Amino acid sequence: MAYDMQQQDDHARLDTLYDRLFPLMRSITGDGIEQSLRIMAEAMPLDIFGVASGTKVFDWETPPQWNCRSACLTGPDGAVICDIGQSNLHLVNYSEGVDRELTLEELQPHLHSLPHLPDAVPYVTSYYNRAWGFCLSHNQRLALKPGMYHVRIDADFSSGRVPLAHTFLDGDSTREILISSYLCHPSLANNELSGPLVLLGLYHRLKAWPRRRHRFRFVLNPETIGSLCYLHLHGEELMARMDAGLVLTCLGGPGSLSYKSSRRETAIVDRLARHWQGQGQPLRLRAFTPTSGSDERQYCSPGFNLPVGQFARCAYGDYDGYHNSLDSKDFMTIEALVQSVDEIEAFLKELDMVGPWTNLAPYGEPQLGRRGLYPNINSAATWGASSDEVFDGRKILERILTVLNYSDGAHDLIAIADKAGCAVRDVLPVVTRLEDGGLLKSTLET
Amino acid sequence: MAYDMQQQDDHARLDTLYDRLFPLMRSITGDGIEQSLRIMAEAMPLDIFGVASGTKVFDWETPPQWNCRSACLTGPDGAVICDIGQSNLHLVNYSEGVDRELTLEELQPHLHSLPHLPDAVPYVTSYYNRAWGFCLSHNQRLALKPGMYHVRIDADFSSGRVPLAHTFLDGDSTREILISSYLCHPSLANNELSGPLVLLGLYHRLKAWPRRRHRFRFVLNPETIGSLCYLHLHGEELMARMDAGLVLTCLGGPGSLSYKSSRRETAIVDRLARHWQGQGQPLRLRAFTPTSGSDERQYCSPGFNLPVGQFARCAYGDYDGYHNSLDSKDFMTIEALVQSVDEIEAFLKELDMVGPWTNLAPYGEPQLGRRGLYPNINSAATWGASSDEVFDGRKILERILTVLNYSDGAHDLIAIADKAGCAVRDVLPVVTRLEDGGLLKSTLET
Amino acid sequence: MAYDMQQQDDHARLDTLYDRLFPLMRSITGDGIEQSLRIMAEAMPLDIFGVASGTKVFDWETPPQWNCRSACLTGPDGAVICDIGQSNLHLVNYSEGVDRELTLEELQPHLHSLPHLPDAVPYVTSYYNRAWGFCLSHNQRLALKPGMYHVRIDADFSSGRVPLAHTFLDGDSTREILISSYLCHPSLANNELSGPLVLLGLYHRLKAWPRRRHRFRFVLNPETIGSLCYLHLHGEELMARMDAGLVLTCLGGPGSLSYKSSRRETAIVDRLARHWQGQGQPLRLRAFTPTSGSDERQYCSPGFNLPVGQFARCAYGDYDGYHNSLDSKDFMTIEALVQSVDEIEAFLKELDMVGPWTNLAPYGEPQLGRRGLYPNINSAATWGASSDEVFDGRKILERILTVLNYSDGAHDLIAIADKAGCAVRDVLPVVTRLEDGGLLKSTLET
Repeated sequence: MAYDMQQQDDHARLDTLYDRLFPLMRSITGDGIEQSLRIMAEAMPLDIFGVASGTKVFDWETPPQWNCRSACLTGPDGAVICDIGQSNLHLVNYSEGVDRELTLEELQPHLHSLPHLPDAVPYVTSYYNRAWGFCLSHNQRLALKPGMYHVRIDADFSSGRVPLAHTFLDGDSTREILISSYLCHPSLANNELSGPLVLLGLYHRLKAWPRRRHRFRFVLNPETIGSLCYLHLHGEELMARMDAGLVLTCLGGPGSLSYKSSRRETAIVDRLARHWQGQGQPLRLRAFTPTSGSDERQYCSPGFNLPVGQFARCAYGDYDGYHNSLDSKDFMTIEALVQSVDEIEAFLKELDMVGPWTNLAPYGEPQLGRRGLYPNINSAATWGASSDEVFDGRKILERILTVLNYSDGAHDLIAIADKAGCAVRDVLPVVTRLEDGGLLKSTLET
Repeated sequence: MAYDMQQQDDHARLDTLYDRLFPLMRSITGDGIEQSLRIMAEAMPLDIFGVASGTKVFDWETPPQWNCRSACLTGPDGAVICDIGQSNLHLVNYSEGVDRELTLEELQPHLHSLPHLPDAVPYVTSYYNRAWGFCLSHNQRLALKPGMYHVRIDADFSSGRVPLAHTFLDGDSTREILISSYLCHPSLANNELSGPLVLLGLYHRLKAWPRRRHRFRFVLNPETIGSLCYLHLHGEELMARMDAGLVLTCLGGPGSLSYKSSRRETAIVDRLARHWQGQGQPLRLRAFTPTSGSDERQYCSPGFNLPVGQFARCAYGDYDGYHNSLDSKDFMTIEALVQSVDEIEAFLKELDMVGPWTNLAPYGEPQLGRRGLYPNINSAATWGASSDEVFDGRKILERILTVLNYSDGAHDLIAIADKAGCAVRDVLPVVTRLEDGGLLKSTLET
Repeated sequence: MAYDMQQQDDHARLDTLYDRLFPLMRSITGDGIEQSLRIMAEAMPLDIFGVASGTKVFDWETPPQWNCRSACLTGPDGAVICDIGQSNLHLVNYSEGVDRELTLEELQPHLHSLPHLPDAVPYVTSYYNRAWGFCLSHNQRLALKPGMYHVRIDADFSSGRVPLAHTFLDGDSTREILISSYLCHPSLANNELSGPLVLLGLYHRLKAWPRRRHRFRFVLNPETIGSLCYLHLHGEELMARMDAGLVLTCLGGPGSLSYKSSRRETAIVDRLARHWQGQGQPLRLRAFTPTSGSDERQYCSPGFNLPVGQFARCAYGDYDGYHNSLDSKDFMTIEALVQSVDEIEAFLKELDMVGPWTNLAPYGEPQLGRRGLYPNINSAATWGASSDEVFDGRKILERILTVLNYSDGAHDLIAIADKAGCAVRDVLPVVTRLEDGGLLKSTLET
């Protein structure tokens, strides 16, 4: 697939950002995530804010801010075994400060490795239990010799905040579509720099649309506690305004795009995903589950029950590199990010338009001829007839009559396209033309 | 199939009327349709009225009244090529007045023929674009020689009305069932003299019923603009009172009866049609579509969304003679009209009775024995047991108990017959007997 | 299957009661049923009451009380042919008093036998038509010789009552589960001493439960007129309070347990039975029908429409002994009664708990760790992990998250177990643990 100019720009932008973001020592609070959000804010107009440490957030209390300046484990012979200067995965995230000598036996409970992936360094966190530890490859661990080890972790906890960021693209209506991803993982590529980078790519695509029907809300946060904090501040607003939402995660690996349903299962975003699959588009469907996933677990908790689905390619648990050092640019490609931007943008174009719509002349059929709305060869392009097929005016007329008849507020374009036996993308030009002709009105408009 | 006396009478009446109506120069306004309605009114007590030319009717404006006294096209040698004295299909319906000489080349854009049916004269109209034209067989057209042609059309437009007609048969309730057909096509048999003639046959059958539960409304109008005008005058009334409606069209050709669903798809009339099919009665089902059909497209527009289905045999588009001179008595038979009357009457008998019904002793089972309602061999006939089968009292008792248990206002007889594993026609005698016995009450009654 | 101690006690109790109850001359009124209820009251704390003869009960009037002291038919040679001292099935139940001589020919219309079961004595009643008669085996009947027969029936009708009995086991909530059976049949085992005896067994099991969520109502009555009388007195109360109900009948024969749906078909008790079948438990399902069955026909009449199903093993009509002298301990076993008690108790344990439940921390996921609710090997038993399998903490966590996410008042445990891909019995320990941990609350509680 050859890139067009837009795709070339996206590729360059995302590649550069990736290389800046990957090495930072991120966590759910602290300098790493704060700096990462500022870097993202250079590329899109993010508003950065937060919730103070120690705040009661639903069933949780926000943790103190963690900062780690250095962390090093040296062996009996003085050789460096783990150093976050090499890879910040070596330290258990949220480790407390330590300066201590231990025997190998005393050290072992603080070490983490993966016997089934002996060359990979795992990613381990301990946000809510005070602890410390180092992560290393299993081969390296097996080679450790008895003796005294020196642990030096220069880290502390202080009052600070859980940082959050968002920005908006306005539309005709104040009804909203949410795009959310998370930026707390350090030095992991697919899970999770891919989500924030695709979110950035989508921001620029949607900014360029000639018209948006919805207001689009883009959110970046640390996973779980971050979305809880975001809901703490903006949950009521989301419940009042949101038509649909999408969490972006694991979008840079191989394989086709997949959609995890919202808890509602029949929300418009769920139905559109099912429609795509029914129309043969390469989208795999996954059922909603509260038992694994990302921030949609918070958005879809029963008190909120927001219509938030999730897009991923090769997701958590489905690839060796999940939560370890194999999740690098060797696995995740910038090409896959651009493809994700392409596919999700196409999905959002339909989601934005899908309705419902209201026929403004609902008593009997409108007199199309009088209004210049009878399709013919001269107006073929305005009805979405593709230029490389023979114009079939009868087919267009059937779509027009089907859209008009079912635009009663109870049917959205998914239902109408199903009635017309075609895809939503096939009826969109008809809808636009009838709207321009004064016969249709979006029920979203304010 | 040998006719009974009722069928003989129907056949004679419809045959005579057909021969009187076929030759008239009908259109959506003017003398032809006015005279046709007066002829129909000799056979049933029609109230004839109309909507004045130039009236705003929903998205439409009623057209001026068209009258055409003569129309003739003569060739270079003076020979008559088309003359409405031979067939009124020769003139494009709603042609403007013309007296003019043209070359064959100038004439061609005004001629209409059917290359794939070279002996047929097509039926063409131009109600809302001022135009004129002649229709002829393709063979005749190919034989036309160069030279000067003379067009003489003595027609004019004047202020008048779109004519409408209706009549009623009262019933126990003021809830209504609508029977509607259209009478604007000139010299076409199946499409459309069959509909009005079957409507007439049904009127006389239903008039003879000992008891009607509904008020039946019979409507005749010109297609599309006529039903819009009828809805303009009576739409609110229909929305307030109608339980079901049927458009009658193309009922004189070969093939089995078919039913096109209303837009609601689960209206009682739709469900009864599906029940007939499920019970093996020869009724084909067609889905609702707003993209082709007759006046149900107006009744089922989203602003009205009336529960109006449509009955047809060989319908528009399914036979060569559709909208051309092949649609004559060679294709349409009076026998098929009588059969349509028979079948639709049987359908209406069930539709009229289908409910819902309310059990007047709903607390526990009623004591049937005390009320003389326990079925036995002496009362077999009153429960609808057919005389040529062995009486099965247990089967009748099961129907009684099923009708009583489910007559709660939420189940109609279609649902109840399904529960009882039989057809609606099998439970009708049980319902009547229980009504006579004081245990059931129609919820329609006023 | 070896009995445990509880089962041994049940067996002994039911066997003793069976032998006391079987020989009594029961009917829908009179000394036999009154004495039977008093015997039952020795084994459980029944409150016995009644509705006076001649009372208007919905569409019925309660019959006079019938008492029969003796009934004997002697032949031409003075030999005794039928005597209720031998079997009380010999007399048509509710026969009027007679002392009369007749020829065999005059006697025949008063005799009842079963040609297809020539050794069985049928069970015949005539509650609402004054009549008398004797029942005997068909072989005995064929051997009757011409001559004069002497009929002596010492029976009378008097003002009395239709007797009823009930008792309660209180629970946390005032919401109720009904267990109902009937005790009017004389000297018939499966149909119907099995139902009352299983009801008694269940009473003692449920009494021993450490905690009941519902109030359980146990009802015994004569069939049909008895449940009508019970509804006459307590119907409004049942409509206000009942979550589910079960009629017990024919529970002592061979074959697996079966469940007849309530009229609602989707009541929680119906859904639980379907869930059991879906989970492979040996429960056959039967559709609701008002045309045959027991007291659920009255509970499920449209005026009440109570959520009452019915449990049976080999039911009315499915075995030779139905309503004749073959229905004895040769067919019905005490072992089958105990098995029915076991199975129905297990069903009631789930029915009592099935919900709905409300998540008390519905905004986001609760922080399980802080609350000590993260499952691990130490707490395995409290989460219902069986001791003979390897503890799978991930599986338990998935059940916890699924229960929390769907406990929104709209999903009961059947729906939640389906979401979790397991049986209701698998999620019950999770629910109890979360309730103890302050995260779940039964919506039944008052």
